[in-house]
Amino acid sequence: MLKKLFPGLEWMLTYQKHDLRGDLSAGLIVAIMLIPQGMAYAMLAGLPPVIGLYASTIPLLVYALFGSSRQLAVGPVAMVSLLVLTGVQGLAEPGSSEYISLVLLLALMVGVIQLSLGLLRLGFITDFISHAVISGFTSAAAIVIGFSQLKHLLGIQLPSSENVFELLFEAGRQLSSINSYTLFIGLTSILILVLMKKYVPKLPAPLVVVVYSTVVVYLFDLHEKGVSIIGEVPDGLPSLSLPSWSFEAVSVLMPVAITIAIIGFVESFAMAKVIATKEKYKVDANRELVGLGLANVSASTFSGYPVTGGFSRSAVNYGAGAKTGLAAIITAILIVLTLLFFTSWFYYMPNAVLAAIIMVAVYGLIDVGEAKHLFKVKKIDGFTLLITFAATLTLGIEMGIFIGIVFSLIVFIWRSANPHMAELGYVEEMDAYRNTARFNNAKTVDHLSILRIDSPLYFANIQRVESRIQQSFLKSEEIDTLILDFQGVNDIDAVAIDHLEELMNTYQELNKNIYLCDVKGPVRDTLKQAGWYETFKGKIEFKDLEHVIAYLKSV
Amino acid sequence: MLKKLFPGLEWMLTYQKHDLRGDLSAGLIVAIMLIPQGMAYAMLAGLPPVIGLYASTIPLLVYALFGSSRQLAVGPVAMVSLLVLTGVQGLAEPGSSEYISLVLLLALMVGVIQLSLGLLRLGFITDFISHAVISGFTSAAAIVIGFSQLKHLLGIQLPSSENVFELLFEAGRQLSSINSYTLFIGLTSILILVLMKKYVPKLPAPLVVVVYSTVVVYLFDLHEKGVSIIGEVPDGLPSLSLPSWSFEAVSVLMPVAITIAIIGFVESFAMAKVIATKEKYKVDANRELVGLGLANVSASTFSGYPVTGGFSRSAVNYGAGAKTGLAAIITAILIVLTLLFFTSWFYYMPNAVLAAIIMVAVYGLIDVGEAKHLFKVKKIDGFTLLITFAATLTLGIEMGIFIGIVFSLIVFIWRSANPHMAELGYVEEMDAYRNTARFNNAKTVDHLSILRIDSPLYFANIQRVESRIQQSFLKSEEIDTLILDFQGVNDIDAVAIDHLEELMNTYQELNKNIYLCDVKGPVRDTLKQAGWYETFKGKIEFKDLEHVIAYLKSV
Repeated sequence: MLKKLFPGLEWMLTYQKHDLRGDLSAGLIVAIMLIPQGMAYAMLAGLPPVIGLYASTIPLLVYALFGSSRQLAVGPVAMVSLLVLTGVQGLAEPGSSEYISLVLLLALMVGVIQLSLGLLRLGFITDFISHAVISGFTSAAAIVIGFSQLKHLLGIQLPSSENVFELLFEAGRQLSSINSYTLFIGLTSILILVLMKKYVPKLPAPLVVVVYSTVVVYLFDLHEKGVSIIGEVPDGLPSLSLPSWSFEAVSVLMPVAITIAIIGFVESFAMAKVIATKEKYKVDANRELVGLGLANVSASTFSGYPVTGGFSRSAVNYGAGAKTGLAAIITAILIVLTLLFFTSWFYYMPNAVLAAIIMVAVYGLIDVGEAKHLFKVKKIDGFTLLITFAATLTLGIEMGIFIGIVFSLIVFIWRSANPHMAELGYVEEMDAYRNTARFNNAKTVDHLSILRIDSPLYFANIQRVESRIQQSFLKSEEIDTLILDFQGVNDIDAVAIDHLEELMNTYQELNKNIYLCDVKGPVRDTLKQAGWYETFKGKIEFKDLEHVIAYLKSV
Repeated sequence: MLKKLFPGLEWMLTYQKHDLRGDLSAGLIVAIMLIPQGMAYAMLAGLPPVIGLYASTIPLLVYALFGSSRQLAVGPVAMVSLLVLTGVQGLAEPGSSEYISLVLLLALMVGVIQLSLGLLRLGFITDFISHAVISGFTSAAAIVIGFSQLKHLLGIQLPSSENVFELLFEAGRQLSSINSYTLFIGLTSILILVLMKKYVPKLPAPLVVVVYSTVVVYLFDLHEKGVSIIGEVPDGLPSLSLPSWSFEAVSVLMPVAITIAIIGFVESFAMAKVIATKEKYKVDANRELVGLGLANVSASTFSGYPVTGGFSRSAVNYGAGAKTGLAAIITAILIVLTLLFFTSWFYYMPNAVLAAIIMVAVYGLIDVGEAKHLFKVKKIDGFTLLITFAATLTLGIEMGIFIGIVFSLIVFIWRSANPHMAELGYVEEMDAYRNTARFNNAKTVDHLSILRIDSPLYFANIQRVESRIQQSFLKSEEIDTLILDFQGVNDIDAVAIDHLEELMNTYQELNKNIYLCDVKGPVRDTLKQAGWYETFKGKIEFKDLEHVIAYLKSV
């Protein structure tokens, strides 16, 4: 019972000593990664960098207790940070105390939404977001995030805009005001990050560039030459905070809260599942929602901002040997120590290095390969990705994901409304009935037509099936028997049954017979409900094609 | 070529003398039915009765030439008339010349929409309207139509409202002002209609009550005692009319025009198909849209209002022996003769008898049996009907059908997102592998699990399948082999392939094997695109279960 409430208790109560080594080293490595990332992502979200550190403390502990993944590294991530910025910047000036208060409210809303979805066991609704949609959306968001950092990299003022072209145009106009020291620090940091990622991927590159750039600024007094720095970072632990709220603010923030709740969960859960499968335990969508939801509620209560499980940080955590949630607890403790004793070290850290860290991180999220792969395997799935990508880039984050979801569902409905049907003939070499369109040597008999239907039958496709059946009979006056092979009919609805029933009755009046064979259990149940086993007795019970044909020969 | 343009030419050029008898008698009977119906439905639509007669002339001829059904009886129908009233009454006073001009514009829009859908070959989009939705919608609309006639039956003034309860309440308040002569004529007419329908269904009951009530009014001078009569009906043919239009009017009328275009077509096409199947010819959705579209354009040009193929009139037409479109041409000619010479006969006809005709006609459209039937066969389809019914009755005609369509599609997606999967075991008595949940004697083997998946695999259900596969392996440490029987997998998308691929790779690393068997053609093609026939060579080519198991025993 207690374990159900606190999944974390499971590993706590059975903790194995030999797991400690991995947990310790993973916890340390993730902390080293998280300190610069947390500050960078907070900046991306339009918040003071220290809020990113606050969000990396209590929420991690809460998740370790309530979440079901043992290796997930929870905390600030790029995508959610961007969503926070785009969702709140229209309501208050980024960085202002009103802005921060709205972000706290947003974190609370995200937490409550995730918690409710989890408690109501509604986690499955996220299944309706196709990976093609996520991929197209992520690539587009990565581009938007990357360009949002341009101003920090160039040391100029740019409008807060999601429109990439507007940003580029504006940057072009201000070419002469670019601060070359800032640009130098930014570009060298990017170079170091890229090279280290390629040649020494095990070393903590973000820490290296942070140290490098801070030292350079300090040594050459670059902050007096126009290089923008982090400056004073308050030390001490996050204070208790209660977001002020109004009905108006809640209703305005609702769309972005829902988007963050769902996107944040989907990104996190995908990673949690991959690791769980490898480690032979199971994560559960609803428990994950509860865990992340409570983490977000705690983020809102302790001056943080919305968090979720990060993709790359979790991979690093798992790779560094994390076995249990203790790794995350160690990370949180190290961040707390940093907040208590080391914030003064960040004084000279330039904003440009955080921008560089963000840009390199999100560049890795642009996944052209996935688009190519989907186009190769199934064109329409590639289009889903492309449309989501284009919509996100041109119409904005929330509209993009909405259009992607709707489009992918329409594609599915579309495909199932055009069911695959095959006319079968006898292939002597194989002693089997096969699709005449694929097997040239499949032989058909004059008075008989065999149709295999490869689709569930329901209102939107029954008319096509009906039409195909009529065609089979209209092909020649001689045809007086039609066999429908139902092995691929996994489901049937009442409307489809009515249509078929009318068709069978009409042809019966015309002295033409329709037989069904290989009807599956669930379909059989529904046909029974419709009384077919009385109405069409002797016509629909055949086990398979061979049995109908044997029967037809016998009468 | 010409025949493609004018499907009607087909029967005209090959007209058989022996068809003439049937066509003549059907044409006459439908005309006798159509004269009172046309006037009644025009009144329902808020139009002068003569417009109903105008709509029963040229449009019938146009459809006979361009439509593909030979027995469809085109003209005014109750449902479309109600839609006209609800769509236009907010813009102008029913019966006013401004109202009539807007209705002409509406007819033109309906015609253009249908014509465009037909020419662009988009007829299939109507497949997405489930019969359950149509049925629920029709029953609710019938109730709304019936109550809209209450004022004519009682001889009182009631507001133009779709809200049944409001109408009843208002009528209750005016109980004392009910005209008893009007009520008497209405009730006796209803009685006669009901009794004749039951005992002498072959006789034209509407004609009988029209004659009866007109004679009664004339003999007893009831029009001087408060019984409202048709009065002067202009004689002569419809004049050419050009609807005046404005962008504003077009945009306001667009939703109702789309609704009429689609609902009108669906009702008409359903009937056309039933008859065509019985008569062994084929009707085509797109040609039907062109035929009805042109009929509506002509209705707009000759002072008519939106028309479509009527359900009951077509049944009467077919039942009376109509063989070709000549029957409809004869009907049109008879209506023209009526317009030229007999309109003065309608002077004393009471509105109450038209109300009675409408009420009895639409009462037959309320289909409780269909709701019961759907609930019995498949509950969820019954719910679709009920929800559409309730939404139409409470939220209005257009909202009702929209909610119904969306709900029915969600149901379909929902069902396919919860795919049926069966764990198979060997049933010795049948020498076959069967669902262990249905067959108690199905035997499973310790280290092996067999899973049959009865669903196309796509992004929305792949996570459930994944989860089930993980469960199979987690059930016992001993299980090292899983066979997925793909006979029911009719389709697969790229996202599902990616998920499966990752799963297969992960288990391969854990020294557990997944085999596929009975993979169908279209799925095979997609797996080939994804490179599976190289990656998973030797694991996915098996023809059926027996082949995998024989292979497993051999290694």
